[in-house]
Order: sequence, then structure tokens, then C-alpha cells
Amino acid sequence: MSKNVNRVWRLETRPEGTADENNLKLIEEPLAEPGEGELLLRVVYLSLDPTNRIWMSDMDQYMEPVQIGAPMRGLIAGQVVKSNTSRFSEGELVMGAGHWADYMITDGKGLSSLGKPGAVPLAEIFGMCAVVGPTAYFGLLDICDPKPGETVVVTAAAGGVGSVVGQIAKMKGARAVGIAGSNEKCKWIKDECGYDAAINYKSEDVGAMLDRYCPEGVDVLFENVGGWIMDEVLARMNNFSRMALCGLISQYNAKEPVPGPYNFQQILMHRIKVQGFIASDYAKDYPKAIGELSSWMREGKLKFRLDIDKGLENALTSLNKLYDGSNQGKLMIEVSEVAG
Amino acid sequence: MSKNVNRVWRLETRPEGTADENNLKLIEEPLAEPGEGELLLRVVYLSLDPTNRIWMSDMDQYMEPVQIGAPMRGLIAGQVVKSNTSRFSEGELVMGAGHWADYMITDGKGLSSLGKPGAVPLAEIFGMCAVVGPTAYFGLLDICDPKPGETVVVTAAAGGVGSVVGQIAKMKGARAVGIAGSNEKCKWIKDECGYDAAINYKSEDVGAMLDRYCPEGVDVLFENVGGWIMDEVLARMNNFSRMALCGLISQYNAKEPVPGPYNFQQILMHRIKVQGFIASDYAKDYPKAIGELSSWMREGKLKFRLDIDKGLENALTSLNKLYDGSNQGKLMIEVSEVAG
Repeated sequence: MSKNVNRVWRLETRPEGTADENNLKLIEEPLAEPGEGELLLRVVYLSLDPTNRIWMSDMDQYMEPVQIGAPMRGLIAGQVVKSNTSRFSEGELVMGAGHWADYMITDGKGLSSLGKPGAVPLAEIFGMCAVVGPTAYFGLLDICDPKPGETVVVTAAAGGVGSVVGQIAKMKGARAVGIAGSNEKCKWIKDECGYDAAINYKSEDVGAMLDRYCPEGVDVLFENVGGWIMDEVLARMNNFSRMALCGLISQYNAKEPVPGPYNFQQILMHRIKVQGFIASDYAKDYPKAIGELSSWMREGKLKFRLDIDKGLENALTSLNKLYDGSNQGKLMIEVSEVAG
Repeated sequence: MSKNVNRVWRLETRPEGTADENNLKLIEEPLAEPGEGELLLRVVYLSLDPTNRIWMSDMDQYMEPVQIGAPMRGLIAGQVVKSNTSRFSEGELVMGAGHWADYMITDGKGLSSLGKPGAVPLAEIFGMCAVVGPTAYFGLLDICDPKPGETVVVTAAAGGVGSVVGQIAKMKGARAVGIAGSNEKCKWIKDECGYDAAINYKSEDVGAMLDRYCPEGVDVLFENVGGWIMDEVLARMNNFSRMALCGLISQYNAKEPVPGPYNFQQILMHRIKVQGFIASDYAKDYPKAIGELSSWMREGKLKFRLDIDKGLENALTSLNKLYDGSNQGKLMIEVSEVAG
């Protein structure tokens, strides 16, 4: 790649179903210069998250969708190449909302510093702290408040968020039952993350396995998926149980309207609390969460698996691993290497 | 009716769809004598509530369904005919869980005294305090906590619960928008209950009317109905809005599984809290609610409409008015008159 060229994934058309290269195009463009008060960042890591697909659509959503023609939005870790502001210096590492691109120009608003190269293990800290850790932390602790001995069920349990949820649930003395899409994933969440039980929804009878592993019913559901799996869990939720609604990945690619859970009335019958949330609702409490998550990581209490693909050009193919469940842990693209 | 005969509605078979006389049969039986520690009650009023249909089914529900062959369960106001316990005396009025019957024998557990005849306006106090008032009070105030200026939407707004919800919302400084099934009901909730706006879902475009009457979106939904009307409201709910899920009357008679709301994902996108509840979850706080509700009634701040049909034999026909919306206010049967 020439020094004066930038590659940018731009949203050309809104996907119907799975996003493909008719929807997002990787375009070579001249690299601009940052203006007064602006930074030029080189993207080092691009986080790929289920919510990316939501941003491509024009459905009613929690922030503005990406506009047609605009660079695709993503959370990034980047390195400052040139700074026209005193807030950030050249070579500094930062993270925040950015673009699917080699470079981006920004006024730095909303970016957090990760210090000089080598100050922190960048991929791990970015993978955990950009969105996964706070999502798991606030969704589980603030919304569901699991008590010792309660049973917590987690869907997409081997994903970035799900694997952290189970581990925090265990630290709080609850039982953790995970639902994931392969035997390898099930083994990993049991052996490494400490889940008490794991269900492979692709090969096992989810209802029967929930009956086996949740003999006293379900007190907490951390929901990332939706659809028939959510219905199986809803059918087993206890009175006064809680559901943190974190994601509905099973339906982001849907072309037709998707019905809500057939067991919706369980919410009434069992007086369940269902609460939708996104991590950034808790932005003011991030320092507490990140402090605690980082401590757990340092102490080895929080296992975490990164699934890092290389090359910006692979971002779209890689993203779609989330929707067929073929990723293994927190998915991101290594766009470039840290310099210096 | 002879003095020694009791008529009892017994559940013969579980309904599929609307309950009819194949499911519930009115049976003449000898009137038994109360044993030691028991009471003989004459039923004066039988409350008919949407939840009665749930109790007839064997769906997963919030209390035991009525067993096949057992007397149909209902909330009743009754008068003590004979007492073999010192806790209640002959002639005293009581309310609590009872039977669809002329008489019942009970150990008095769970019954509340309403004093001697004439101490309170029986129909009004029973109609408000047995279930309607506490349901409206706790569902709105505890779950939804409406703030001054917020917009509260109420479905089945001219029903017993709905009419009270709107009035409490207004007392708290919120705007109240009701959805009901006739022009007469809409006029009544606006003119008498103080609703700011009312939508006749049978003749108006609910979505367009919600846009008109809720120009800043919906902050609170007090949901009694479910189905497509809930979807229309969900589509307009604000970030961090709240739904008290009180009932799903549109689906209690369904013969097939009913899908949840197509706009379920709004709960995620707008971080909505959905909380199912039943009034008896708040039993320990009833005195506070009933005290406040009674004061509002005495001060004329709380309008309330009773729809009283006469005759135990009409209970089943009358109950079904709830499901086609032809009742006007809190529905009950006058089974007998107060003596003395």
C-alpha cells in the first residue's frame, strides 16, 4: 500500500440478508492531511461485533445507521501518525469509534488513550475493554444481579461477551450454563471459563439439556441470540427472574419481519424483568468496570480468547463468521502493526 | 333456590378457544355444613377478570390452574352465614379468593374483613380494592415510575385497571393516552377519567393516532392486551422507556401458539424495561395502596365504573364480555344481596 493511499470500506447499499461486497466496497482513496485540531490515525485493530450488521441497516436502532456512501463504522485501536492537537501525541495508542479503513482523520472526540506502545498488551486490552468486557459486566451485574446459587444461562456463550459473562457469574457464586454452537466451544467454556455446563445447540436437544442442567429453573438469562433458543430458555425461567437483552444475532440478517418469542407470555406469568441495554449507556461507570476487568485479567481470573484475522481486505468475510458462529472468541482484524 | 342447595360452576374440561358450557358447568349440589374452624360464606359479588381464562387452562402460569372437576376460582365478596371460628362473625362482610358459587366453605385464610353491612359501599370497594386498584397502582408506580411530562399509553384503557392507570398517571403529572374499543369508551376515559387522548382501535389507524397523540414518543406502556396493538406502541417507545406487562388478553383464548411482538427487538434498540407482574406480588404493600386509592375515591379524584350483571347462572356469558370488549368498566356478578 502506498503511503498516500487509504483503503476504506464504504457502505454502497443496505444489505438484505447477509452483507456482501455489493453492500460494502473496499475503495482506494488518496490519503488526506489532518486539519487544525485533528489527528491522523493508522488503524491497528478493527473490532468486529454483531451490532455492525445493525448499523448497515436502516432499521430503528440505538444510534444513527451508517449513511450510504459513508465509511463503515467500527470500534478501532489505532496509533497516532500525525497530531495537530495537544491532546494526543505522535505514536500514542488510542481506542474508540472509527472506520473500517487503513487510516482515519478525527478530532479525537470519544477516543481514549492506551498510552505509548508496549504500555499495555494492546490486542487483549482493546478486545476486552472496547466493548466486550463492559457489555458483560454491566449487563450481568447491573441488570441481572445474580445471587449465589442462582442459575445463569448465557447464549452465544463462547463469544467474546458470553465467555466473560459466565466467568463473572461464577465469581459471584452463581451457576453458569452456556449455549454454544460446537463441541469445541462447549469444551472451551467448561474447561477454561469454568462454566458448570454447556449445551451444543447444533447437536443436542436444548430443552432437554436445559432441564438437566437447570433442575431448579433459570434465574438469569444473558441473551445474545434470540429465536427458538430464547424460547426454550423462557419456558424454564423462574418467578422474578431477569433477562439482560444484549443481542439478537439470529435475526440481524433476516429479510422478513421476525416474530418475538412464542413464550413472551412467560414474562407475565413468571414476572420476568427483560431489559435491553448497550454498554455505552454505562459510559460514566466505565472506569470502575475496566479497572475491575483489568485486575481480573492480571490475576488470571478472566480467561479470554481472541480470534484475530489479518488484513483489512478480509473484514467483511471475517464479520460474517459471527453470524454462522464460526468465530472462536472475540473477533477482530489486525489492520496494521504497531510502530515504534 | 332451596336453602339446602348450592350451585357451583365446576371446570369439566379445559377450554380450547373461548370457554363455553362444555367446559364450565353450573351444578346443583347439597349445601354442606362448615366444620370446626370453618366458615360458611354466601357469595355476594363475584369478580370477573381476564385472568380467569388463564386459570381454566393448563398453560404454565403464575399459580396453580383450577383442577378438572374443581369449583371455578374467582375473587369474591361474601357474607358470613355461619362461623365456627372466632376470627369472623355472622353477618360480617369479607373478600378474597373464592368460588363461582352461591356458597362456599372456607377456613378463612386469605380473607379480608370489610366490616358489618353498610360500613363501606361494598361493590365499589370490592371492585376497586380486590384487584383492580392495586394492579393499576403497583404496575404503574412501582414498575414504570412515570415522571411529570412523560407520555403513558394504556391498552384496554376503559377496563377496570386501565381506567385507574390513566387517572393515577395524570395525578403524577404525566400525559395519558388510552386505547379502547368503542367511541363510547374513548369518550368516557377522556371526559370522566381525564385521559388526554383516546384511540378507538376498532375504527382508527392506531399507528397514525399514536404518532399524533405521542409526538415525543412513548415513555411508559401499561400493557393489558398484547398482539398488534402492542407492536404499534413498541415501535414508538423511547430510549429507556418502561412497559408494565399486566395482561395479554388478546391471546388467552388462542388455540395455537401466539408469536411474541414483531417489534421485540425494540426492547434492545431502545433499552426498554419490560416487567411482568401480578398485583399479589405486592401483597405486603396492599394497605398503603388501598389507603391511598380509598382516599382518592372519597375525594372524588378517582372515577370508577362498575359493570354488574346479576345472577350466578350468567357468570360464564358475562365473563366472555371481557374478551370481546363489550364490558364497560370493572365486571362483576351480583350473586346475592347483602342481608341485615
